[in-house]
Amino acid sequence: MERIDFQTDPSRYRHWRIEIDGEVASLIMDVDQAASVFEGVELKLNSYDLGVDIELNDAVQRLRFEHPEVRAVVVKSGKDNVFCAGANIRMLGKASHGHKVNFCKYTNETRLAIEDACESSGQAYLAAVKGSCAGGGYELALATQHILLVDDRRSTVSLPETPLLGVLPGTGGLTRVTDKRKVRRDRADVFCSTEEGVRGAKAVEWRLVDEVVPNSKWADTVAARARELATRSDRPRDAKGIALIPLDRRMNGDAIAYPHVSLDLDRGRGIATLTLRAPSGPAPASVAAAHAQGAAFWPLALARELEDAILHLRANEPEIGLVVFRTEGDAAAVLAHDALLGESDWLMREVRHYLKRVLKRVDVTSRSFVALVEPGTCFAGTLAELVLAADRSLMLIGTRDGDNRPAAAITLGDANFGHYPMGNGLTRLETRFLGDAAAVARLRQKIGVPLDAEAADEAGLVTATVESYDWDDELRVMLEERASFSPDALTGMEANLRFAGPETMETKIFGRLTAWQNWIFQRPNAVGQQGALKLYGTGVQPTFDKGRV
Amino acid sequence: MERIDFQTDPSRYRHWRIEIDGEVASLIMDVDQAASVFEGVELKLNSYDLGVDIELNDAVQRLRFEHPEVRAVVVKSGKDNVFCAGANIRMLGKASHGHKVNFCKYTNETRLAIEDACESSGQAYLAAVKGSCAGGGYELALATQHILLVDDRRSTVSLPETPLLGVLPGTGGLTRVTDKRKVRRDRADVFCSTEEGVRGAKAVEWRLVDEVVPNSKWADTVAARARELATRSDRPRDAKGIALIPLDRRMNGDAIAYPHVSLDLDRGRGIATLTLRAPSGPAPASVAAAHAQGAAFWPLALARELEDAILHLRANEPEIGLVVFRTEGDAAAVLAHDALLGESDWLMREVRHYLKRVLKRVDVTSRSFVALVEPGTCFAGTLAELVLAADRSLMLIGTRDGDNRPAAAITLGDANFGHYPMGNGLTRLETRFLGDAAAVARLRQKIGVPLDAEAADEAGLVTATVESYDWDDELRVMLEERASFSPDALTGMEANLRFAGPETMETKIFGRLTAWQNWIFQRPNAVGQQGALKLYGTGVQPTFDKGRV
Repeated sequence: MERIDFQTDPSRYRHWRIEIDGEVASLIMDVDQAASVFEGVELKLNSYDLGVDIELNDAVQRLRFEHPEVRAVVVKSGKDNVFCAGANIRMLGKASHGHKVNFCKYTNETRLAIEDACESSGQAYLAAVKGSCAGGGYELALATQHILLVDDRRSTVSLPETPLLGVLPGTGGLTRVTDKRKVRRDRADVFCSTEEGVRGAKAVEWRLVDEVVPNSKWADTVAARARELATRSDRPRDAKGIALIPLDRRMNGDAIAYPHVSLDLDRGRGIATLTLRAPSGPAPASVAAAHAQGAAFWPLALARELEDAILHLRANEPEIGLVVFRTEGDAAAVLAHDALLGESDWLMREVRHYLKRVLKRVDVTSRSFVALVEPGTCFAGTLAELVLAADRSLMLIGTRDGDNRPAAAITLGDANFGHYPMGNGLTRLETRFLGDAAAVARLRQKIGVPLDAEAADEAGLVTATVESYDWDDELRVMLEERASFSPDALTGMEANLRFAGPETMETKIFGRLTAWQNWIFQRPNAVGQQGALKLYGTGVQPTFDKGRV
Repeated sequence: MERIDFQTDPSRYRHWRIEIDGEVASLIMDVDQAASVFEGVELKLNSYDLGVDIELNDAVQRLRFEHPEVRAVVVKSGKDNVFCAGANIRMLGKASHGHKVNFCKYTNETRLAIEDACESSGQAYLAAVKGSCAGGGYELALATQHILLVDDRRSTVSLPETPLLGVLPGTGGLTRVTDKRKVRRDRADVFCSTEEGVRGAKAVEWRLVDEVVPNSKWADTVAARARELATRSDRPRDAKGIALIPLDRRMNGDAIAYPHVSLDLDRGRGIATLTLRAPSGPAPASVAAAHAQGAAFWPLALARELEDAILHLRANEPEIGLVVFRTEGDAAAVLAHDALLGESDWLMREVRHYLKRVLKRVDVTSRSFVALVEPGTCFAGTLAELVLAADRSLMLIGTRDGDNRPAAAITLGDANFGHYPMGNGLTRLETRFLGDAAAVARLRQKIGVPLDAEAADEAGLVTATVESYDWDDELRVMLEERASFSPDALTGMEANLRFAGPETMETKIFGRLTAWQNWIFQRPNAVGQQGALKLYGTGVQPTFDKGRV
């Protein structure tokens, strides 16, 4: 498979259309069956692969940034008789274990981005389900806040993965059924084992959809519901959107350079260095001036570049097991930009939530993260979140011989105390000091104060502080040691240690559901030569090892 | 491997000793290295296998029931230089995937039983750690409420699974470190990747232990802490314990019969029928009379028999994928016994919490459960929990031709509204009606009222109600359909659907941590010919596939 590129734009879409009619947008799924990222896979019946979801994610993103006027988004199908058949099964059968896991992770993130648009951005999503809505198709509908199902005696919703494929509805399906829609567990059990799905009044009674609508009233009802939800939105009426112009991205061998982010790979050691640069100039003088910068506004540009780099590592560089975070530049410039994000303004809000989502992508990325806090770095405000997101951080004490840059400092800002909650609903500081709310309160008093190594250590912000003469050895030993461990054990360890404290639907999706799906994705009963996923569509029945584990 | 028997008693222990000195008991781990359940495995250095944990579970149980005078339990080692080396690694290397998963599940349940004794039973557990305390050994210490570590420059606590074995500290280790002891995530990361562990003051600073104690003050300090915790106990001073006499268990081919429980296997269909019988006589007239019945007191006898049957199915009958719950007898007798469990009395409390733990074992058992509510059944009070614990339930409408027993009824009791919270902290009714607190409130009004099929259906207590002429077909189709599904997909589906709503440390252990560990337990990096678990102790370094998933 070729390199997966997560950048796209509507002019290049093969699978989706956006139609905007005033405050209501239609997001129309019309998959080009010939355009799978897998050669030889046909994306029949609006089934999808990673490429389809990359376009969906792009569309969701652009609707938020480019279309402040859109207050409701209706997800519908561009094909007759089928809403969406879910993830393409031949693709799942052919894909490597790693690809399947990454595909599910990304798809889950896209579903959560839809929910985030509803909750945080005043953009209501509705699913207008006409035709069969199966598996990942229903999981897409579940991500919206209102599901309409046409009552034509043919259209159904279903999660047929268990009976048909021997795997789970793993793009959030099981969790959203029980925790979001609060379907009774025994009904959920029946529903998830019923190939043909559920339709009509029963789908409403079981809470699987919000309403069923006769065919004769379909278009009017969908339009009416969209308008109703649109009226509840707090999005501005006359604002101008920001164009998400193509990223300035230069690939050169094992390096990728963006204006504010660089990614450099050391394949021999399996290490990537991800360098984030502070803004090169002062912050815009006002929110209006920030709007005028458009996609060049530093926090937005940084989010887009960091997101692209992380997604690239996940999908295209599985053997890079460790990522080092570095920063460069002027901490004051970071904090000045952060200050704008706290303003009450639709675009500032979008950027804030986008950075939140990108940092969450870091949290669920199966790579070890190490932050290096050295002279010349600027882990301040938004960039300080990387120290808190990292599995470990090292901070250099004082300065280096022959280096006239001042000693390293970490500077917290308001952004660290609420802008970027993790999936568990807590800030990274709250998660870090789960047993010690007073520690978080004390740190709040230090907002804006550069904390040197001693102070940062005292405050519990870094894992270790190291003298300059020990730095190279300490770092080398740590990186070599990490590289010697089982990549799988590290993935599991990090997935557990990163999410202390409360759980939410989101952490359940990435913790419980995902981990079970990953387990099942390796089992012979799914992927063996006689497994259900392997044999689907061949007419041959799978042969199961009946042993329960 | 021979049939695993979960019944034991102190006279048969090979690995543990209980020493009681007034209100303080010592629970001494002194593993007989020649007595593994696996032939050819030597349980060196106080390492353990399932057999060792079965004795520990038995000891924890007997301390609660047989020794009301014991208010604090000190867990210590009977060997020099080692507290406990954790799960035996050769055993893990040799065991089947299914055995490993079951072993971890049972061991986790034992750890939770220790925590339940501390929280619910006024019996404080302390770990007195002298010598090396590694992996599952430290996980055992983590389950206590106070960990003392001797400060002898040699004794350490460690979770070396990731660096040494390429697996997780999966008996609750990772979760207890972050969520119970609230160790900072980066310190947890360092700790879990440090083979040699942590000792002395750093172990306290990192919250890994509660105190370090010089060797010279060791015995006195341990005794003092035990006494201090004992003073906080609400256990009675002069009560007489209940002897947990051996179960009356008759095995006959594919059937096991206990006085109140029968297990009958249909191997051809992969189905077990678990029949629970109501008390045959009236309830004891008083709590004192219940005490006089000892282990024959129906709720206690039922709990022991049901637990043994469930554990037997898990460990010894992996190809039995589905369990049918039936009940027989007089609902009023069940409710009358239940009423005693609500009394304020140490033994009634023990029985209630024991039933809670047994029902939780059902919740985490990887088998499909179906409850059949027919004429002659008595799903009332405690027994009604089985309808709520089941993945599905079928209830027969009316009576059967030629059967003069009255129509089936479900009768809720106080027990269903708080005696038996699930791992998520909610009752099964609250979990079932997660989106509808009013439904639970309405059901509370029906306590003691026999609900026929129509009423039970209306109240949402059963999955489906079926006319007698459809019953056999409905049931056959349902059972055949279930048997045709992938056992792995069912395990994953049930593990997700059963635990809607909030998460706790316990559900995180069984959801997130366990699922990741199961995944890792299948990965070539752990169990392949070049995997870390396989090669441990051979002197050969593992060869890892470096791809991160």
